[in-house]
Amino acid sequence: MDVYISGAGMTKFGRSSHSLEEMMAEAASLALKDARLERVDAIYIGVMNVEEFVGDSNFAAILADTLGLTGVPSTRVETASSTGAGAFETAFYAVASGHMKNVLVLAGEKMTHLPTAKTTRILSEVIDRSERRYGATMPALAAMIAQKYARQYNLPLSKLGDILAQVAIKNHSNGSLNPYAQFRKIITKEDYLKSQMVSYPLRLYDCAPITDGASAIVLTLQRTPIKVSAIGHATDTSAVSHRASLTSFNSTKEAALKAYTMAQVNPSDIQFGEVHDAFTLFEIIGTEDLGFFSPGEGWKALEEGKTQLKGSLPINPSGGLKSRGHPVGASGLAQLVEIVLQLRGEAGKKRQLERAEIGLAQSIGGLGNNNLVTLLERSDRKRVMREGWSPDYHPEMNTSRKASISSVKEGVGLLETFTTLYAPPEGFRSPLTLGFVKTKGGEMVMACNPDYRSPKELKMGKNVYLNTQEGLYVFERFTLWNRLKRWIKRPPKSQP
Amino acid sequence: MDVYISGAGMTKFGRSSHSLEEMMAEAASLALKDARLERVDAIYIGVMNVEEFVGDSNFAAILADTLGLTGVPSTRVETASSTGAGAFETAFYAVASGHMKNVLVLAGEKMTHLPTAKTTRILSEVIDRSERRYGATMPALAAMIAQKYARQYNLPLSKLGDILAQVAIKNHSNGSLNPYAQFRKIITKEDYLKSQMVSYPLRLYDCAPITDGASAIVLTLQRTPIKVSAIGHATDTSAVSHRASLTSFNSTKEAALKAYTMAQVNPSDIQFGEVHDAFTLFEIIGTEDLGFFSPGEGWKALEEGKTQLKGSLPINPSGGLKSRGHPVGASGLAQLVEIVLQLRGEAGKKRQLERAEIGLAQSIGGLGNNNLVTLLERSDRKRVMREGWSPDYHPEMNTSRKASISSVKEGVGLLETFTTLYAPPEGFRSPLTLGFVKTKGGEMVMACNPDYRSPKELKMGKNVYLNTQEGLYVFERFTLWNRLKRWIKRPPKSQP
Repeated sequence: MDVYISGAGMTKFGRSSHSLEEMMAEAASLALKDARLERVDAIYIGVMNVEEFVGDSNFAAILADTLGLTGVPSTRVETASSTGAGAFETAFYAVASGHMKNVLVLAGEKMTHLPTAKTTRILSEVIDRSERRYGATMPALAAMIAQKYARQYNLPLSKLGDILAQVAIKNHSNGSLNPYAQFRKIITKEDYLKSQMVSYPLRLYDCAPITDGASAIVLTLQRTPIKVSAIGHATDTSAVSHRASLTSFNSTKEAALKAYTMAQVNPSDIQFGEVHDAFTLFEIIGTEDLGFFSPGEGWKALEEGKTQLKGSLPINPSGGLKSRGHPVGASGLAQLVEIVLQLRGEAGKKRQLERAEIGLAQSIGGLGNNNLVTLLERSDRKRVMREGWSPDYHPEMNTSRKASISSVKEGVGLLETFTTLYAPPEGFRSPLTLGFVKTKGGEMVMACNPDYRSPKELKMGKNVYLNTQEGLYVFERFTLWNRLKRWIKRPPKSQP
Repeated sequence: MDVYISGAGMTKFGRSSHSLEEMMAEAASLALKDARLERVDAIYIGVMNVEEFVGDSNFAAILADTLGLTGVPSTRVETASSTGAGAFETAFYAVASGHMKNVLVLAGEKMTHLPTAKTTRILSEVIDRSERRYGATMPALAAMIAQKYARQYNLPLSKLGDILAQVAIKNHSNGSLNPYAQFRKIITKEDYLKSQMVSYPLRLYDCAPITDGASAIVLTLQRTPIKVSAIGHATDTSAVSHRASLTSFNSTKEAALKAYTMAQVNPSDIQFGEVHDAFTLFEIIGTEDLGFFSPGEGWKALEEGKTQLKGSLPINPSGGLKSRGHPVGASGLAQLVEIVLQLRGEAGKKRQLERAEIGLAQSIGGLGNNNLVTLLERSDRKRVMREGWSPDYHPEMNTSRKASISSVKEGVGLLETFTTLYAPPEGFRSPLTLGFVKTKGGEMVMACNPDYRSPKELKMGKNVYLNTQEGLYVFERFTLWNRLKRWIKRPPKSQP
């Protein structure tokens, strides 16, 4: 059965003095009022980590009670940082099954009350254990992806900085027009360059902020002006080092393929998008993975202004995660609230897009391994039959988790990418240099570099020595001194 | 669309040396093999608190990868201790919508590796904050419900002990025949009485154990011998003190009503059940809430042997949570695995029920506030049209959360029920006496009793003094000495 949207609402995002329940109740009440409903058949609650951020469990039941909807079935759904979209998907199937008529999807997260170090630790738990134990954080992994992207597409690092700054500037500019946004100030290139280095080459202004907020949508079987056209959802390897490509996300591509197929549309049909810019580069990669632009061309489209509010394909008219803020559980649903507002022509004079009949939201779970693509359209949109779209998509080239019990020992490898992390997790030395090293056998592993001096002394695509120390891989530059050290320390030949 | 079950499997429950991922992979592989499938369209993962038990987040994606099903959409679902049933419900709608053909539901929990105190603390987070701050644990709340049940139905406490022992003995006897059960030993009344007092009057043998384990079911659109006839799901107030009744669960009644209506059956159609016996008394209350026996008659049915393996309505042929074990996220789905085995006639010579064409599972989330009732039947079962069933069900008599900002001050109240907790959470004195006190205004509040000597000195249904101390309600017995103390300590009358 077809599923429609009858209500949408959200809190202002930012630092809030309200509890998570209070924020979620506010968003719910706005969406229910918008839908002219007092009761629903079910509630789907999206919160990523209420256990550790807030210290509550059984949160779905708490919320039903808080909303005055005691009795109504309430289920918590979680897909890491795409949780809001995951809850929406789950609710969509409940309604599409015909068993539920009206369903409330409610997503939120409360994060700003904790010290940043603790928040970072909690967020890092989405990272595969094998990589987390090196001290890898989300910004560190994103930074390694950024370096690799620059190298793969021959962008000098200064040019990469230029491009990333432009994403931040565009999204802050959009966000300045959005009353729900956390940051409503325009930023300049100077502001970007002044912002602190978080994980080389990513700066603070490359990263979505820590935010409190909640968003809500009501789904219904009754025809309304807004229809859910399609949802695609896909996973990828848990460890980033197991992926054949570091500069695109299979999970976005596969989710997009499913969504386009289900809606019978092509990327060229999409008029605007909310793309998960947890890190500035992810917006560019997103526009490539979604088929809007060819691989390696996303940054050019950005430079040409195509993704601006007045461009041919506006991306993140809301300000995106960067400027609207990123309460992790809520973001995926907040993207959809923005699309509803745009499709209805209710986004406000300055932010309202001219063409808004079909919009797309892409939400990233974890470091790109639990992603969703959702398409919403006006119910009166004229449909045109399209040829199928097929992304360049090769999951079979990934390393499987089972096969990954590493057999790598010492030896020479190639430094695929690296980063220097300036605020590593507790217990790790700062700064912390991490890299992905490809061994002669073709296996990619994370490794750390204890003899750090400056990130400028390391070069991607160069050979490095790979060692193990205390169960961790360590890489060293291929210098004469390091060769000598290794020769002196080499173990005696064992007797047969 | 109708939904069928094509595969089921589970690990042996108990203390496991395997990781949560490994256990879940084992259960998944058994269920997929049973269904003769290698790939599915989606995975629904039930884990209650993987964040705090295991320290991982984004677990749905980790599991897709672990199973070698990278790419497949994977969503984590949580409804507290009914999580396994909640994940099954969610997957059911996905298949019923027609968007998914084959879906894997996979539930598990890893608990035994942590110290018991930490496990208890994590489990306590499902309790409403307003009650948790008194030091209330799950056994403490269950114990207060048990005392109230005994009083309401005029059972002396020794008789209550008799009955509860019989539940434990029956379920251990069933579990001794179940190769998947954690405890496969028969217990006697002496064993029961020798087991330590956890929270007066509940003993260790009244409580389900701490367990590791995983269970899995494959749902499909293709007709198989086992059909999902219905699912009902309902919530109740988060605070137990807000409920009009302490001796039954509205959430079970409403979920059962929905399930029976959806399947067009009556309680009298049900041939056997798996009932959430996290505490022995909950099995008895469950059989009443589900309409099998009248309120206050469940214990009589038990005494008459009706719920035994050879009785007219076998309850917990698997051994229940008590003997099979209770890995919190997995239990709701393990109940359904048992029902599948029984319906297929695959439960083994000694445990196989004679009549097994339709079975029911009831799963409790939290302290009875996120419950599910699921009905499975043989696809060839002959259906008889039944009159509707209606439970005695009055949620409108509950106190709403919004209205509960307590206005109670000092005064005289009635001690509705109480318990003495012998292993309170860290930071609370042991033993800890907690009670529910009804004020003259009719409001029920939790309160503690610091001048504890023995639970035998307290009487339910008697007046007590209610005070506040450091933001907590405190109750004191209505003795002459306490009256005198209060008179001496009374504040001077304030001047107008």
